[in-house]
Amino acid sequence: MTEITPETLEKLKRCGQGTLTTQLFRRGYRQQFLVGLSPMSKETGRFAGEAFTLRFIPSREDKDWDLGDLKKRGEENLQWEAVEAIAAGQVLVIDSRGDTRAASAGNMLMTRMMKKGVVAAITDGAWRDGTEIGEMPFPAYARANTASTRPAYHRAIGMQEPIGCAEVAVYPGDIIVGDADGVTVIPRAIAADVADDALEQEQREAFLLTKIEGGAPLWGTYPADAATLAEYEDWKSA
Amino acid sequence: MTEITPETLEKLKRCGQGTLTTQLFRRGYRQQFLVGLSPMSKETGRFAGEAFTLRFIPSREDKDWDLGDLKKRGEENLQWEAVEAIAAGQVLVIDSRGDTRAASAGNMLMTRMMKKGVVAAITDGAWRDGTEIGEMPFPAYARANTASTRPAYHRAIGMQEPIGCAEVAVYPGDIIVGDADGVTVIPRAIAADVADDALEQEQREAFLLTKIEGGAPLWGTYPADAATLAEYEDWKSA
Amino acid sequence: MTEITPETLEKLKRCGQGTLTTQLFRRGYRQQFLVGLSPMSKETGRFAGEAFTLRFIPSREDKDWDLGDLKKRGEENLQWEAVEAIAAGQVLVIDSRGDTRAASAGNMLMTRMMKKGVVAAITDGAWRDGTEIGEMPFPAYARANTASTRPAYHRAIGMQEPIGCAEVAVYPGDIIVGDADGVTVIPRAIAADVADDALEQEQREAFLLTKIEGGAPLWGTYPADAATLAEYEDWKSA
Amino acid sequence: MTEITPETLEKLKRCGQGTLTTQLFRRGYRQQFLVGLSPMSKETGRFAGEAFTLRFIPSREDKDWDLGDLKKRGEENLQWEAVEAIAAGQVLVIDSRGDTRAASAGNMLMTRMMKKGVVAAITDGAWRDGTEIGEMPFPAYARANTASTRPAYHRAIGMQEPIGCAEVAVYPGDIIVGDADGVTVIPRAIAADVADDALEQEQREAFLLTKIEGGAPLWGTYPADAATLAEYEDWKSA
Amino acid sequence: MTEITPETLEKLKRCGQGTLTTQLFRRGYRQQFLVGLSPMSKETGRFAGEAFTLRFIPSREDKDWDLGDLKKRGEENLQWEAVEAIAAGQVLVIDSRGDTRAASAGNMLMTRMMKKGVVAAITDGAWRDGTEIGEMPFPAYARANTASTRPAYHRAIGMQEPIGCAEVAVYPGDIIVGDADGVTVIPRAIAADVADDALEQEQREAFLLTKIEGGAPLWGTYPADAATLAEYEDWKSA
Amino acid sequence: MTEITPETLEKLKRCGQGTLTTQLFRRGYRQQFLVGLSPMSKETGRFAGEAFTLRFIPSREDKDWDLGDLKKRGEENLQWEAVEAIAAGQVLVIDSRGDTRAASAGNMLMTRMMKKGVVAAITDGAWRDGTEIGEMPFPAYARANTASTRPAYHRAIGMQEPIGCAEVAVYPGDIIVGDADGVTVIPRAIAADVADDALEQEQREAFLLTKIEGGAPLWGTYPADAATLAEYEDWKSA
Repeated sequence: MTEITPETLEKLKRCGQGTLTTQLFRRGYRQQFLVGLSPMSKETGRFAGEAFTLRFIPSREDKDWDLGDLKKRGEENLQWEAVEAIAAGQVLVIDSRGDTRAASAGNMLMTRMMKKGVVAAITDGAWRDGTEIGEMPFPAYARANTASTRPAYHRAIGMQEPIGCAEVAVYPGDIIVGDADGVTVIPRAIAADVADDALEQEQREAFLLTKIEGGAPLWGTYPADAATLAEYEDWKSA
Repeated sequence: MTEITPETLEKLKRCGQGTLTTQLFRRGYRQQFLVGLSPMSKETGRFAGEAFTLRFIPSREDKDWDLGDLKKRGEENLQWEAVEAIAAGQVLVIDSRGDTRAASAGNMLMTRMMKKGVVAAITDGAWRDGTEIGEMPFPAYARANTASTRPAYHRAIGMQEPIGCAEVAVYPGDIIVGDADGVTVIPRAIAADVADDALEQEQREAFLLTKIEGGAPLWGTYPADAATLAEYEDWKSA
Repeated sequence: MTEITPETLEKLKRCGQGTLTTQLFRRGYRQQFLVGLSPMSKETGRFAGEAFTLRFIPSREDKDWDLGDLKKRGEENLQWEAVEAIAAGQVLVIDSRGDTRAASAGNMLMTRMMKKGVVAAITDGAWRDGTEIGEMPFPAYARANTASTRPAYHRAIGMQEPIGCAEVAVYPGDIIVGDADGVTVIPRAIAADVADDALEQEQREAFLLTKIEGGAPLWGTYPADAATLAEYEDWKSA
Repeated sequence: MTEITPETLEKLKRCGQGTLTTQLFRRGYRQQFLVGLSPMSKETGRFAGEAFTLRFIPSREDKDWDLGDLKKRGEENLQWEAVEAIAAGQVLVIDSRGDTRAASAGNMLMTRMMKKGVVAAITDGAWRDGTEIGEMPFPAYARANTASTRPAYHRAIGMQEPIGCAEVAVYPGDIIVGDADGVTVIPRAIAADVADDALEQEQREAFLLTKIEGGAPLWGTYPADAATLAEYEDWKSA
Repeated sequence: MTEITPETLEKLKRCGQGTLTTQLFRRGYRQQFLVGLSPMSKETGRFAGEAFTLRFIPSREDKDWDLGDLKKRGEENLQWEAVEAIAAGQVLVIDSRGDTRAASAGNMLMTRMMKKGVVAAITDGAWRDGTEIGEMPFPAYARANTASTRPAYHRAIGMQEPIGCAEVAVYPGDIIVGDADGVTVIPRAIAADVADDALEQEQREAFLLTKIEGGAPLWGTYPADAATLAEYEDWKSA
Repeated sequence: MTEITPETLEKLKRCGQGTLTTQLFRRGYRQQFLVGLSPMSKETGRFAGEAFTLRFIPSREDKDWDLGDLKKRGEENLQWEAVEAIAAGQVLVIDSRGDTRAASAGNMLMTRMMKKGVVAAITDGAWRDGTEIGEMPFPAYARANTASTRPAYHRAIGMQEPIGCAEVAVYPGDIIVGDADGVTVIPRAIAADVADDALEQEQREAFLLTKIEGGAPLWGTYPADAATLAEYEDWKSA
């Protein structure tokens, strides 16, 4: 896999989701934002890390109805395996088929991951204990907050496989960036390139916003014409 | 109907929704959480009370278009009857067919119920005046906030009947427990039993969480193995 | 078009959405509230202004994939034209076909409109930069917060045409009123009449609420019987 | 209840759903057609009869999981009671909350009703045995064909109550008319009046269609101007 | 506008929707098929023609509740104007916002268009009189069959504007091709080019299908390798 | 894996979906029917075979936009691999995430599978070439017919993994039974047992239906009381 440097992650963490999705769109990627997922806390800061994936399928009465299973290891309890296998600096991304009828996980597993240095946790289903999770300094995204226990509707069946999350493909190792506005998936192979251009765009637009706040019209300012660009270059080098 | 003691309600109020739904799942109940309903206020505290049900059907131009009806009593204005009939300690649960196009009720009826000692109000449709309701010390749950007046889409047609709310069956007298995470419906006949086991689970998990926060792995801790259980017993008796 | 006086707008700004939709229902309008749209900030104050409409259609690869288009004027960049054409006192209302997969606009255009004295911005799709917009003193309503750039799914194709927004018809010049609870569309021709009756209702219900808060039952109070109405008249003239 | 004569039913059976809904709209009824429900057979002929209602709520593990219940009488097996209680000339209308995950009924109950002279059966959920039902000379409407047994998601809880079906209010005794295009609910009190006007409209439009088929433009023909109306009167009296 | 020759239309009529969408995908167009729309008749033959667009917005009580409007001309009855304005060889495409609660049109307007030589009619909402329309030799596509009269939910507000239909952009003059499988929108500027390549693909795949039917594996056959292509060339020139 | 005898498959093929789902419900399985999937042809006969699974994830521009990929082998073209790997007697079951925006496959792959002796093909997304497929003597089930090419929205990423299809878990080797009414998934381990009881139920109900057709009431007949059961035993042994 393409190497990802700490500098690339650092640059990505300085960019908003609007900037990142624009850079991805310029490269032909139409939809890399996880539509419909929200952070449990509005205080969620910006993060970047590589994807560790987990896939759920619908649960079934003969496989998932015995809660004693939680003590088993291996394929019988793949979610516990995943939470222990994921490394510091990674982001857990769960394919819950968009099904919010049962929780993908709750505060116990979140706390464990936070303690291990995991960067964030994302499901296209629901979390339980959403209020408590929202008070933890740990970014957690979901479509809803649902208390019902996972095996009521979900079984963890595979980890570190390519998955879909909120109708976006996620390959293990893809770079996941997020903040209070939501989450963007950046294909690993282009992450460094996106980081460079996104940071430049982020800085330029910070300058352009001061112009708009000062009363400038869109025309000539956003996007910038030659005069405004020159002004931006001066501002940047000042 | 099975008697429900104040102690049972008190125990249930000490348990989170995740604990309650897990206890219900162990008893074979798959989905007793009201998926998709949120409290109007994030400050919503925990409550428990018995269900008082109200059923809505779609409104019709010849039955519901004259707002003067609100002055009538009896079957012609069953919602007003319900708000006056519900008793202190009960929880209003409205079957609005999940339809959020008009409000199930607004701040006037909420205030009346709060003054009477009603414990909470729940609809699988919408409330109007959601901002004001969110500032009242009265738990109110809905799928959305919609200002349009009830008769635009709803007619109250029956009270204290078995209903569905958010696709969960609710029988009059069922025990309704909720907090900032949402609402769980506990069949009355098993409420005392659930309360006992849920409180024990809640306490044990509070202890286990301190272990996880201290860096323990899931294996051996959650669920607890014999050693951890022994440690818990010590902690509890300390 | 019917003239709208500042007094009418002022009256409307003193009324909640529940009052306005009730007055509209009395006149035969079933659903003028924009169901499903929320303000980016819970601090959103009340506003009233006339509608300036913008219509989106789905984007297409041959028309919308070149982001350089943003520099073009005229039909090629109708959204920029709209933001510059809308006047102080107006409310931007965008028909995004309820599609939240890409943003209808972001903080740059919002800031420009706020600086121009535009009253509010509404889409039945999504905004990007929702967190920043939520901190601006500018009412902005949407169904979601999505970072993906507009041309990924939308093209601005017409302005100041009659449109649908959240399944409500909006004609240019209609009066748009909103607050933290949401947004109501008032047909221009009846706005003055609605304003008079709504303000009267708003004041009467403020009085009736004090009665309910004081422990009065609904019967006789809400709606008010002759005795309560007399009491209200005294209160009002006090 | 208003008496309904055989003549009224006969007239209604001569009218299409488009004619009936237009007559209802002229009287202020916006939506009396059961949107989304289809006949099991495209050969479904036209029928008219009075509504016999049945209401379902979500099933629950403690109430509905024992299929032996089907032998019990009374409230424990209200669907069987309903099928035996409904009379010749009536139409069964089931409120299944639009939930197609389990069948509202299957070919055995359909056959029983057909033998008794029941006119038709309608659910806003699903039937099982749809292929066999589609071959019976008995109009049956649903949103889908689902084999799963009723108690998996439904419990029959009340009969001959006002209900909603496909978001249309249905009161026991309302007149239900249908054909291969679908089903219309006519409030009982206005059925005779609607029948008269609908039959006249049906006949007039049959004539106007011959004009359109002959190449006439819409203007002057549909709706008819004075000359066309005169022509129609001649045609009718011929 | 780019000229479209009869030869281009003739070629397109010889191609299936799968072939056309593949050719469009090769040119970068992801989704030009009208997902979710079905023909009223399974006997629907293949057609091609240029788009004539009609746009609906939600109806409103003060604008659309008087059915007498149907006699008015001009903006007050734009749908009638459209049906008389559309020319032989064109295809009516209606943007009904995907709303199936009322009919976009019925058999009278369909018959008028068929008599005029209109090629087909498409809505992303519903038709009424679906059974009759299904028996006419006139391709008509919709999401559903709903009897309720158009003004209950729709108002025709603009014709020959760019619109969205089933979330696909349709510009007046685009080429619309359809058959029993559904409808594809081909941007006018590339229609001739698509026609050439699609017809070649259609013919090649007809040959390849004979190979697969004869027991050939996919590898080497579909897509064809050099040997199979040579065989195809022989077959074609035979 | 549990062995499945030809006798078991033969018995299952003699049972309708309603019988099978009832037997599964009696064993605690709530929903094993694939809700929302329909056969392409109403002539679809009954079949039974073991599941061969294929999993799709969302496509991505860098992975799936080059249609030349179809010539590649291995992971780059897993769908072709699957169609060649599946054996006679098996049923292809595709997890398309319920996404109907692009086809899961078309007539070429269907023909190849039919020639190989594959029993049926099922997707919870869409097929293209639905009309042609509907004329083939090969059972094919989907949620819709969509012409758009697979890589527009889907990538085949894994085969013979446990998947979800229409929100039902499907493990490789599960027994899939279907007919014109739809498809049921039978866990492999209980297939033989289900087959025995289902066939007995199917025969008994065939007898009971003759009673109902003869005018018998439900009570005593369906379910059968002792007298009816005795009559059935006589009939069976006759």
